[in-house]
Amino acid sequence: MSTSSDSQVLQAIRDRRSAREYLDTPVKKEAIRRIVEAGRLAPSGANRQPWHFVVIDDPEVKHNLRLICEDAEARYYKNADEELREWFTAHSVTPSKPFLERAPVLIAVFFDPHAPYAIPSVWILIAHMLLQATQEGLYSLPYTPSGAELGPPLGVPLKYRVAALLPIGYAERPACQPRLPLSQIASSNAFGMPIEGD
Amino acid sequence: MSTSSDSQVLQAIRDRRSAREYLDTPVKKEAIRRIVEAGRLAPSGANRQPWHFVVIDDPEVKHNLRLICEDAEARYYKNADEELREWFTAHSVTPSKPFLERAPVLIAVFFDPHAPYAIPSVWILIAHMLLQATQEGLYSLPYTPSGAELGPPLGVPLKYRVAALLPIGYAERPACQPRLPLSQIASSNAFGMPIEGD
Repeated sequence: MSTSSDSQVLQAIRDRRSAREYLDTPVKKEAIRRIVEAGRLAPSGANRQPWHFVVIDDPEVKHNLRLICEDAEARYYKNADEELREWFTAHSVTPSKPFLERAPVLIAVFFDPHAPYAIPSVWILIAHMLLQATQEGLYSLPYTPSGAELGPPLGVPLKYRVAALLPIGYAERPACQPRLPLSQIASSNAFGMPIEGD
Repeated sequence: MSTSSDSQVLQAIRDRRSAREYLDTPVKKEAIRRIVEAGRLAPSGANRQPWHFVVIDDPEVKHNLRLICEDAEARYYKNADEELREWFTAHSVTPSKPFLERAPVLIAVFFDPHAPYAIPSVWILIAHMLLQATQEGLYSLPYTPSGAELGPPLGVPLKYRVAALLPIGYAERPACQPRLPLSQIASSNAFGMPIEGD
């Protein structure tokens, strides 16, 4: 498909990359506001909007969250079954999460798991934030803390659980992760029937 | 915040509405292709892309899926606890799902729940599709079939589960669902601390 006629939406989807290393370049508050706004406007089950975001730029708070996350990740990795640990090793995934401190801004996204369709809703919201960050020329990563309790250190009420911690910042553009061709992931009317034009 | 300078991404996020009633107006195949492309490009845990989409425009297939979903919904509603049933009644939610037949196109989104971060990944993908549909001037709805088994009738391998069935079509523009103000859903550095400018 030609990219020349893509809308900005499809272009942002195409341009989005997950970054794990961030530059020190400060991020404008207006950009963060638009990213938060993109989340605020997300749909939710019964329009309950069962979420709360904490925008973090205080270095001490970021440092503290990094320590909590790395501590939880270390426990998680230690208790993971062998197959999962092999997968971590193969993908150079370690409990160390320096991006939580290096990114100029973190957005911690909390949600109430008892709300209807809470998990689908909050991940649609996170997708909105990731695309708006791309539109701003910024990078992010949908990092899901493994078992870390981030509500208490941020004073977030106990009914909320953390869905993701989004680092936001400028970055050297990461390489594109290849995608499967349409013929392998899409069918027409029944599994295996090609989409027209394939 | 002014909307005049919004990017197309934020504008699509702002314009998106969930529609339950669709017009007969046909949908161009190119628009569906771009919606599917928006899904194909979604990020996923370890880039596994653990999904398959079935694009359905065959009236018999749509009719069959509607019957399966309505049957499953009827059982789900009957077995729901009293509190949930009251919620359904209060929100005029019934087991009847005519939009599954009336929308010119359905996109059934399946995913492999055993892949890493499968649920977050597939809901980011669905958000991409919803925004691209909006960009095309189309409407959709992230409908999650309650307990319906949609893989077997579409020939989808058993390892996949359905995440959502997305009706796609033109519609009379639904009213805007009000959103909570930023001050109620966002904080700066600690819960309850206002975002600058609030």
